[in-house]
Amino acid sequence: MAADTVDLGFAQVDVARQARQGLPEVIYGPGKSADQLADIAAALLAANTGPVLATRVGPEIAEHLPAAHYDPAARLLTWRRAAARQATVCVVSAGTSDAPVAAEAAAVASAIGLAVTTVTDVGVAGIHRLLAHTDALHAADVVIVIAGMEGALASVVGGLVAGPVIAVPTSTGYGAALEGVTALLAMLSSCAAGITVVNIDSGFGAATAAYRLAHTMRRRDDHR
Amino acid sequence: MAADTVDLGFAQVDVARQARQGLPEVIYGPGKSADQLADIAAALLAANTGPVLATRVGPEIAEHLPAAHYDPAARLLTWRRAAARQATVCVVSAGTSDAPVAAEAAAVASAIGLAVTTVTDVGVAGIHRLLAHTDALHAADVVIVIAGMEGALASVVGGLVAGPVIAVPTSTGYGAALEGVTALLAMLSSCAAGITVVNIDSGFGAATAAYRLAHTMRRRDDHR
Amino acid sequence: MAADTVDLGFAQVDVARQARQGLPEVIYGPGKSADQLADIAAALLAANTGPVLATRVGPEIAEHLPAAHYDPAARLLTWRRAAARQATVCVVSAGTSDAPVAAEAAAVASAIGLAVTTVTDVGVAGIHRLLAHTDALHAADVVIVIAGMEGALASVVGGLVAGPVIAVPTSTGYGAALEGVTALLAMLSSCAAGITVVNIDSGFGAATAAYRLAHTMRRRDDHR
Amino acid sequence: MAADTVDLGFAQVDVARQARQGLPEVIYGPGKSADQLADIAAALLAANTGPVLATRVGPEIAEHLPAAHYDPAARLLTWRRAAARQATVCVVSAGTSDAPVAAEAAAVASAIGLAVTTVTDVGVAGIHRLLAHTDALHAADVVIVIAGMEGALASVVGGLVAGPVIAVPTSTGYGAALEGVTALLAMLSSCAAGITVVNIDSGFGAATAAYRLAHTMRRRDDHR
Amino acid sequence: MAADTVDLGFAQVDVARQARQGLPEVIYGPGKSADQLADIAAALLAANTGPVLATRVGPEIAEHLPAAHYDPAARLLTWRRAAARQATVCVVSAGTSDAPVAAEAAAVASAIGLAVTTVTDVGVAGIHRLLAHTDALHAADVVIVIAGMEGALASVVGGLVAGPVIAVPTSTGYGAALEGVTALLAMLSSCAAGITVVNIDSGFGAATAAYRLAHTMRRRDDHR
Amino acid sequence: MAADTVDLGFAQVDVARQARQGLPEVIYGPGKSADQLADIAAALLAANTGPVLATRVGPEIAEHLPAAHYDPAARLLTWRRAAARQATVCVVSAGTSDAPVAAEAAAVASAIGLAVTTVTDVGVAGIHRLLAHTDALHAADVVIVIAGMEGALASVVGGLVAGPVIAVPTSTGYGAALEGVTALLAMLSSCAAGITVVNIDSGFGAATAAYRLAHTMRRRDDHR
Amino acid sequence: MAADTVDLGFAQVDVARQARQGLPEVIYGPGKSADQLADIAAALLAANTGPVLATRVGPEIAEHLPAAHYDPAARLLTWRRAAARQATVCVVSAGTSDAPVAAEAAAVASAIGLAVTTVTDVGVAGIHRLLAHTDALHAADVVIVIAGMEGALASVVGGLVAGPVIAVPTSTGYGAALEGVTALLAMLSSCAAGITVVNIDSGFGAATAAYRLAHTMRRRDDHR
Amino acid sequence: MAADTVDLGFAQVDVARQARQGLPEVIYGPGKSADQLADIAAALLAANTGPVLATRVGPEIAEHLPAAHYDPAARLLTWRRAAARQATVCVVSAGTSDAPVAAEAAAVASAIGLAVTTVTDVGVAGIHRLLAHTDALHAADVVIVIAGMEGALASVVGGLVAGPVIAVPTSTGYGAALEGVTALLAMLSSCAAGITVVNIDSGFGAATAAYRLAHTMRRRDDHR
Repeated sequence: MAADTVDLGFAQVDVARQARQGLPEVIYGPGKSADQLADIAAALLAANTGPVLATRVGPEIAEHLPAAHYDPAARLLTWRRAAARQATVCVVSAGTSDAPVAAEAAAVASAIGLAVTTVTDVGVAGIHRLLAHTDALHAADVVIVIAGMEGALASVVGGLVAGPVIAVPTSTGYGAALEGVTALLAMLSSCAAGITVVNIDSGFGAATAAYRLAHTMRRRDDHR
Repeated sequence: MAADTVDLGFAQVDVARQARQGLPEVIYGPGKSADQLADIAAALLAANTGPVLATRVGPEIAEHLPAAHYDPAARLLTWRRAAARQATVCVVSAGTSDAPVAAEAAAVASAIGLAVTTVTDVGVAGIHRLLAHTDALHAADVVIVIAGMEGALASVVGGLVAGPVIAVPTSTGYGAALEGVTALLAMLSSCAAGITVVNIDSGFGAATAAYRLAHTMRRRDDHR
Repeated sequence: MAADTVDLGFAQVDVARQARQGLPEVIYGPGKSADQLADIAAALLAANTGPVLATRVGPEIAEHLPAAHYDPAARLLTWRRAAARQATVCVVSAGTSDAPVAAEAAAVASAIGLAVTTVTDVGVAGIHRLLAHTDALHAADVVIVIAGMEGALASVVGGLVAGPVIAVPTSTGYGAALEGVTALLAMLSSCAAGITVVNIDSGFGAATAAYRLAHTMRRRDDHR
Repeated sequence: MAADTVDLGFAQVDVARQARQGLPEVIYGPGKSADQLADIAAALLAANTGPVLATRVGPEIAEHLPAAHYDPAARLLTWRRAAARQATVCVVSAGTSDAPVAAEAAAVASAIGLAVTTVTDVGVAGIHRLLAHTDALHAADVVIVIAGMEGALASVVGGLVAGPVIAVPTSTGYGAALEGVTALLAMLSSCAAGITVVNIDSGFGAATAAYRLAHTMRRRDDHR
Repeated sequence: MAADTVDLGFAQVDVARQARQGLPEVIYGPGKSADQLADIAAALLAANTGPVLATRVGPEIAEHLPAAHYDPAARLLTWRRAAARQATVCVVSAGTSDAPVAAEAAAVASAIGLAVTTVTDVGVAGIHRLLAHTDALHAADVVIVIAGMEGALASVVGGLVAGPVIAVPTSTGYGAALEGVTALLAMLSSCAAGITVVNIDSGFGAATAAYRLAHTMRRRDDHR
Repeated sequence: MAADTVDLGFAQVDVARQARQGLPEVIYGPGKSADQLADIAAALLAANTGPVLATRVGPEIAEHLPAAHYDPAARLLTWRRAAARQATVCVVSAGTSDAPVAAEAAAVASAIGLAVTTVTDVGVAGIHRLLAHTDALHAADVVIVIAGMEGALASVVGGLVAGPVIAVPTSTGYGAALEGVTALLAMLSSCAAGITVVNIDSGFGAATAAYRLAHTMRRRDDHR
Repeated sequence: MAADTVDLGFAQVDVARQARQGLPEVIYGPGKSADQLADIAAALLAANTGPVLATRVGPEIAEHLPAAHYDPAARLLTWRRAAARQATVCVVSAGTSDAPVAAEAAAVASAIGLAVTTVTDVGVAGIHRLLAHTDALHAADVVIVIAGMEGALASVVGGLVAGPVIAVPTSTGYGAALEGVTALLAMLSSCAAGITVVNIDSGFGAATAAYRLAHTMRRRDDHR
Repeated sequence: MAADTVDLGFAQVDVARQARQGLPEVIYGPGKSADQLADIAAALLAANTGPVLATRVGPEIAEHLPAAHYDPAARLLTWRRAAARQATVCVVSAGTSDAPVAAEAAAVASAIGLAVTTVTDVGVAGIHRLLAHTDALHAADVVIVIAGMEGALASVVGGLVAGPVIAVPTSTGYGAALEGVTALLAMLSSCAAGITVVNIDSGFGAATAAYRLAHTMRRRDDHR
């Protein structure tokens, strides 16, 4: 057991996750001090060879952690990036208000080794904007669709591409948008078959779901 | 008061509605016996010149009312149709499961004098099906969009046409579709500006909303 | 495609919307900096001839955009107004707390070319206040009804006028008012036939829905 | 204790309620057999002098209880009526679909000694129907307002009369009416001050609330 | 009409409410400036003889209105009190956290002419505290019960007294208390017959409901 | 592993639960055929010495399983009862409609070895009925409180006894009772400290929670 | 357009979906007659070479369609199966009540060409049952986790395997399980990173999501 | 009565609770000033011999109360601790974000006399972390499980131990976690039998529930 967990008192760091799942634990930033983040990162850096990240970190915390690279749009701290993998993800977002979630998805995916392309501001109210990017959608191994309000973009993309589509509802909108719940329910009820969904505003969740697919692809490659 | 209301004991029939609003009251069928429907219809036929209808009537009731025409798909009884108006409505529906609501919208709209065209089974998972009907959408004075599940069709249509779009969420779907609540919330949160929404499964509501638009159009025509 | 979209990096401006729908895209203010608003407005002004607006803009942003007219009650920025159209909208509001939403509806409607009249503070608890304004309601091509709490005003107005009624629930009230959800559900369940509803607090949505009707009316005029 | 409760095994009948509250317990019918109803009624009849009733009883149960009077519209069994009191209640209902709840309110109120008047089918979509009955509303000591869908009738009546208004939301309607929850929330959020609300479809609750008011009135009369 | 409404531009003051309902309109404070409150109060003072109040006013507004008496616990401004009536209300509250709502109920009731007694901090977890006050409960014409969390106090009081019980759910509590919704639902589902309920935290609503009863009682007195 | 699980194809019976937790798995009846129930019971009887039960079994299934004792009120099948333990549970229920849940709690508790007493029909609207049973409540090691509607009984009992109180909300009631959700939320928000709650209508859950306490008590006894 | 859609009057069959997405449209059974199913299937069989299926078909419909193979556990009709692909999916289910959803997932996955393994009845209350199957989980390219009630199995599996995990909440359970909504929310909130979720009870959705992954894998294989 | 309640004007302190339930009332801090806390504590200290605590007290209040010990992590003030009891509770928490709730549970339990052990940061995504602590779980008389997000830890622990498990959902997480409602519903729907649940974030509720169990254990010990 000793090898699996590092006891920091305030946290039991699961340093065996890379061995089990290919990717070290990603640190969830909210509620942790700069010192706590640094201690957990140090444990992960020492015990693994993979990428070490913390999500949802504000600039007032990040400025105390110069050893890590900070991406303010994605609110992501990166102590060590992964080696690049042969898997591509296209991050498609519906509106300018969805940009922070798209930034998190793209930054996390990139830091854990995926190749990332982006298509932005292609909401369905002007469907021609999306159709102009059909090639980019088809070229990717996985498409992450990020949309708030009614979340209709996921269904349209799901009908255009044959590969995996991971939908991320966002809390963009007001009133009946119910802080993302409407987009979440809509994406789960999509008429396009085989779309999967992650939690509201979870660019991180979509990126790690993409990683799981890349894991299977690489394993196949290795077995060939 | 005598002229405004006919007292049938179980109901106070508002026979002045045509004078106030151009259209007699439409009878809401659920919970009413064939005799009650016949009595209310008789009062409306006698006191007005406009169309007399009853919605949501099952065949087991309708068979006792041979004086009225019955449309089983729309579950609509019609004692008297309106004269035709110079206003057209296009009823667009997303899937075959939405057919009953589309039938009600089309049948009510037609019975109250609007010219109706239909576009069926054009859900957004195969967006090309909808785009093939762009001309029909543009030709109408009003477009009624009927969709369940995630209701995304309303947003896409709202982005294609310039005229009024009335969205009707349906209770099609299961689980996260929440019996139409998800489509309702999604349509209200649409990223396409100026879409309006009526109650779940209310083809009747959409048809009468279209009638209101036609009323204004006709008044304007009359004033020219 | 190049003609349809202007790529500003952070946004893909849909400059073809006026051609498709008669009205350029209206900018959604929240989350955008003064510079971003200015850049999008510049793209729209250059590519179109129609009105250019941004909604839900606070005074701390507006003061950096002297080129636009700012209406603080409506929180609306206007770079260019539309030419006046021959269509009138009456904005009716239930209480003094609904004033900001009514102001947005009226200001947007006016800026996009509609003639606007207003009836304020006519909640149904003193029904005589509303009945005193019956003529103003009948005179309009479209009536926008703005109410929070129980939203009953929409049903009463819907029973008085024959033309289109667009209901806007507001987040006025507390407790069981559920930040506008109660008024929204009540308006959707209205016993007055043919009322349509837009999102909570969306004066903008109601104004653009009115514009859609005006579009159809003008097209009819043009075809005569 | 022996005097307060009669132990029937399956039930502990609170026979002291009349002494405490002026009115014996009213039996809640659902789930009870005809024999159980008869046993509880017998205990109440023996230990009290007041009215003995059972609510929400179907005809298939009632036919086995010939000793009680059965009102099928109200689904009410009455073994013994109360002496008449000098208090009047006006039961106002919005539509024909609300009739069963109105029947329960009126029948229970009458059986427990209140004088009842009724105004039916006066929904706010035809406000003149209600205004024609203003005198009946003013004449009553208490007004019970019964409405489903958006429940707007409660607010309008609350603005017309000065005395107590007890609102009963009903499960009439579909979709966004949410089986009475919308009317319930709307009545609780009413802009008319001092309206009180009971549970959905609870004609019984409104009648017993009216009884409580009559109790205070009589006590006051007695003290003069 | 002129006599019924005073047009202040930002508000249409319903000055005829006293004539219709015995009590002038009570001003709802939130969102109004001190000047607006003063103007509405002036209109009401001039056109009526009854009490003039504003609820939910913070001290930062009240300090600019020295002409009115301010009760900081109740957040109530009073320009003119009503003459005392022969009706008593007992305000019972469950816990110390419910004190602000109880203060509003008591202060409004007193200002509109009712005699008020109070019983505080008698939650059902120590039922003996409530039972010690049985006499005070019985002595009142109306009992207002104020409770948050699970709101059980309303049911217990409803089982002890014979007169009217008006329940006010409060937003006291956390988690499953859902900001007062749980207490609201619980009070509406009470097993004690004839309890009525007003909106969450609405001490004002309970006081004006009590006033409605006092109105009927006085009318009866006048008719004797 | 072979010893832990018996593979029946349609089910993997966890026969090691008695060794881990002192009590064999209790079979959940819904959706299982008589044959499936018999097969699972046989596996549990063979591999353990403890009680073997199936809950929520209808009479139409039970009649095919003569080897088990069937309690129709509790809908419980018992193949083998547990030896009696020195732990007592008092099952208190609020109304006659809660009887089926109380029966399940009592029958399961008894079958797994607890001594059971019952107090029935003691809803808080007649608080004296409950207070008459204070001794029975104090005598028990654990009190299970079963109530629907507003669920207030749990708070009152929680304030009377010092030992563990397990609250079971029931789906009794209508409208705002929301099929048990209101009682559930109310019990979780109870002002009486230290009450715990199980799922709606889960007499089984309460009985097994009581068993867990008895387990600890016996272990303590064994260690003395 | 002619090539893309076959117009059957009641349906517009999207026969181009195989060309766009590799898989013909799967027919949604509910609400369709046997004749309608047969007509749609005929259109799909004629225009494509891929598998042709209809989901959620009851035996009373299936018996009229002898040309298709019917799987009653999965409620699936298969007119033509796909050729086998080199991709494996492991369908893991928590309890015996989840069997119908697991059967649909497995049958659809198999019919569209995936190799399927199953692990059944491994709920987390007996965690050893799941841990015994770790090898089967690791061997699959994709794991589908099917669980109702609290849905905890998804989080545990998500922590064990490195590849894609698709979670399917089921409507198993009662009360607080809220017909699958609780499991849905829990899976979306999982502490295991990168789990994706489909609609309640949608074994079909999970199988087609797995197909999308297989599509990317095959494309990658083809490109090597 | 005098002996049971101390009247402080703003509060009626129930000083008889220790006599009734073994433990004096614990003061709920929110909304109370330092002076109010001091006065209530003084009344409790004078009238009882047991522990005197106040929960949810911020440091800005606590600094004015030097007579009490303050635990900032638990936000707990302690004027007097209880004598130690022979009962042990193990507080198990899922993640570092759950630490404040775990601290409250542990601190309150300790202050009221229970022996406390802790197991921290053992979320189910790394199930080996929990399994390493099986001995600590088994050693306790009661286990308190604290988890947010999907709350799966409660089910896994419930399947491992035989004694009482009290689950505390926390508001940790975002989006679909719904501020703790998801964990609450999941714990109530747990597939592990006999788990009980307290309110969201209520470490206090769990500690006092454990105390109730200890009360029964001690009473039993005393009777031997």
